[in-house]
Amino acid sequence: MSLTVQKYGGSSVDNAERVRNVAKRITDAYKAGGEVVAVLSAQGDTTDELIEKAFEINPRASKREMDMLLANGEQISISLCAMAIEALGYPVVSLTGWQIGMHTDSEYGSARIKRIDGSRIRAELDRKNIVLVAGFQGINKYDDVTTLGRGGSDTTAVAVATALKADTCQIYTDVNGVYTADPRIVKGARKLDEITYDEMLELATLGAQVLHNRSVEMAKRYHVPLEVLSSLESCPGTKVKEVVNMEAMQVSGVARDNNVARISLTNLPDVPGMAFKLFSLLSQQKINVDIILQSIGRGNNKDISFTVAQTAARQARDVLEEHKDNLGYEELIIREDVSKVSIVGSGMVNNPGVAASMFEALYRAGVNIQMISTSEIKVSVLIDRAQSDKAVQAVHEQFFGG
Amino acid sequence: MSLTVQKYGGSSVDNAERVRNVAKRITDAYKAGGEVVAVLSAQGDTTDELIEKAFEINPRASKREMDMLLANGEQISISLCAMAIEALGYPVVSLTGWQIGMHTDSEYGSARIKRIDGSRIRAELDRKNIVLVAGFQGINKYDDVTTLGRGGSDTTAVAVATALKADTCQIYTDVNGVYTADPRIVKGARKLDEITYDEMLELATLGAQVLHNRSVEMAKRYHVPLEVLSSLESCPGTKVKEVVNMEAMQVSGVARDNNVARISLTNLPDVPGMAFKLFSLLSQQKINVDIILQSIGRGNNKDISFTVAQTAARQARDVLEEHKDNLGYEELIIREDVSKVSIVGSGMVNNPGVAASMFEALYRAGVNIQMISTSEIKVSVLIDRAQSDKAVQAVHEQFFGG
Repeated sequence: MSLTVQKYGGSSVDNAERVRNVAKRITDAYKAGGEVVAVLSAQGDTTDELIEKAFEINPRASKREMDMLLANGEQISISLCAMAIEALGYPVVSLTGWQIGMHTDSEYGSARIKRIDGSRIRAELDRKNIVLVAGFQGINKYDDVTTLGRGGSDTTAVAVATALKADTCQIYTDVNGVYTADPRIVKGARKLDEITYDEMLELATLGAQVLHNRSVEMAKRYHVPLEVLSSLESCPGTKVKEVVNMEAMQVSGVARDNNVARISLTNLPDVPGMAFKLFSLLSQQKINVDIILQSIGRGNNKDISFTVAQTAARQARDVLEEHKDNLGYEELIIREDVSKVSIVGSGMVNNPGVAASMFEALYRAGVNIQMISTSEIKVSVLIDRAQSDKAVQAVHEQFFGG
Repeated sequence: MSLTVQKYGGSSVDNAERVRNVAKRITDAYKAGGEVVAVLSAQGDTTDELIEKAFEINPRASKREMDMLLANGEQISISLCAMAIEALGYPVVSLTGWQIGMHTDSEYGSARIKRIDGSRIRAELDRKNIVLVAGFQGINKYDDVTTLGRGGSDTTAVAVATALKADTCQIYTDVNGVYTADPRIVKGARKLDEITYDEMLELATLGAQVLHNRSVEMAKRYHVPLEVLSSLESCPGTKVKEVVNMEAMQVSGVARDNNVARISLTNLPDVPGMAFKLFSLLSQQKINVDIILQSIGRGNNKDISFTVAQTAARQARDVLEEHKDNLGYEELIIREDVSKVSIVGSGMVNNPGVAASMFEALYRAGVNIQMISTSEIKVSVLIDRAQSDKAVQAVHEQFFGG
């Protein structure tokens, strides 16, 4: 018998009507003869309402108590959805994080999953029950409630699918799949039937925001077949798997990320250890650096430019200015009016012309490239934000047609 | 070191300000040098809101999923209150029913407590933590969430006090103690400093509504010293214990219950087994019968009158009418305009004049007595509801002065 793990996000269970809609989808899968486990997020605004209540009482509440509070959101979702499934006449049982034995570390607010004791879910499936699981939550070794942080429910779904050796893990969202580019900004963006884990990872990192990286990483590690589907429409989604059948396709998607800022330090002394000094300062502040560009030395000096998330730019500037004497640079320049545009595709490994083809499209569109970064399955460029719509469109047309 | 278990009801934690007020009371007790465990109910309207959400989705939801849903109310309360205590700078930890090992049977919605594994609470107290416990909830042998039904949080508090051998169990409510009569209807009603478990049980049954019977029964069985206090004012409450120091006092309180209806069956055949037939019919319908009055036979016939809760009167009538032929009565008469007025006092066992004294007061006030019922520590009379204010006042003056 086939086992499907489904995951529905907060907007999919936002109100009674949507809960009933999700119940219908779950029971349709059950009726088709398979075993079904569905992981649910908290209803739309529940988490925000709980955070607001907490903030009114103590803006600096401990993360332990915050997790104790927030875990209620998912528990409310699963019991309400179970009631909707009961109303449709199907056997169902809802289970919290501790009931399914979802063991995590003790990093309240962003706990990592250590293991799932799948026996309770297995027993319920053997009793022919549909099983609803509270996403986003677990317990640590003290039996205290933890939450998994951003993308937590996706990660719960993949972890449950892994523990139960599910045949497929379906992630239902408000989009109906993974596209070659953001359909809101790119004319002619096409839905992909399939994509590899690695491509999905690059796209997630690059701001495609369909699936959280953690869940894709875990799916890749444990070979869980993922599928991204719409919870509102009924149509095939995008399958995420190890290898896809499209060797001919060099590029699977074009992504844009506006949460980026470029920082340049000019006239740094050209001595060994300078890059180490600079980037270890930033990493101590937990600031992630993305693209790095170092000029070749001019005399005894050189320039270093790098990008960080725009949300981290101010913090980066503060720490760099604090250590100006120690680093010995002349000027610090921050530019926030930039975007990163990337192409992703596992096919490009064996196609050396892909990067050049992207640069050609940008050149024709009159877009100037500030920085370039490449990996085996990705090419990213930093450009003026004002030109980014045009750039994404031009690059998409280059690889996918008009 | 002394250990106090406190319990705060839903209205005591209704909003942020009240949660802070409760946090203050809890930390005051902790500051005074003792160990403190506080059991909390759900915030004022939370339970109603959750029930409404459930009803919108499925008015006939299973009790298992209903309990799964409702248990969130208390979990939200304890985490918010823990945050308020953190804001005051004290060490605190909140714990749900499953975390304290509150084991119940599987009667969802009205589960009975089987045992508490006190080790987690004990460990937290040893770490000098204030411990907040979610009232009203437990888990059954399948590790599923159960709720304890009416008076559940009071019962949780007494059970926790029992398991931890607490020195006292303080029940904070919106009244500041147990009174000789309802102060809203009786002029001169006085707060009692002390009362026995048995008296409290009679008063609770008789509609005093300060403490739920289940919690008083458990406190009596396990000798837990109870105290009823106001969560809003700071003044001594009423202590509930085994023996109180007032032998001289015959009566500790006067109670009135308006949720009562009298049912009379006339001209029943005067044959053996008639009472059995009648009352087993009612008990099969789970209708509790209170006072029973049987006329002495006239010829081959007799009348039987009895009281039931007014809320059960219609159901009782239906079942009796259905079995009219089988029972063989002539007429069924229901009177709903009645009240039960009772005096309670362990001192009356050795004071045979107490009942007579009550009847004297009623006679002087011009109140006609329809039915009488007595126990070792209680005398109840059934009277016209229209006269009940007057009756309670007169009886109270008889025993407690004007």
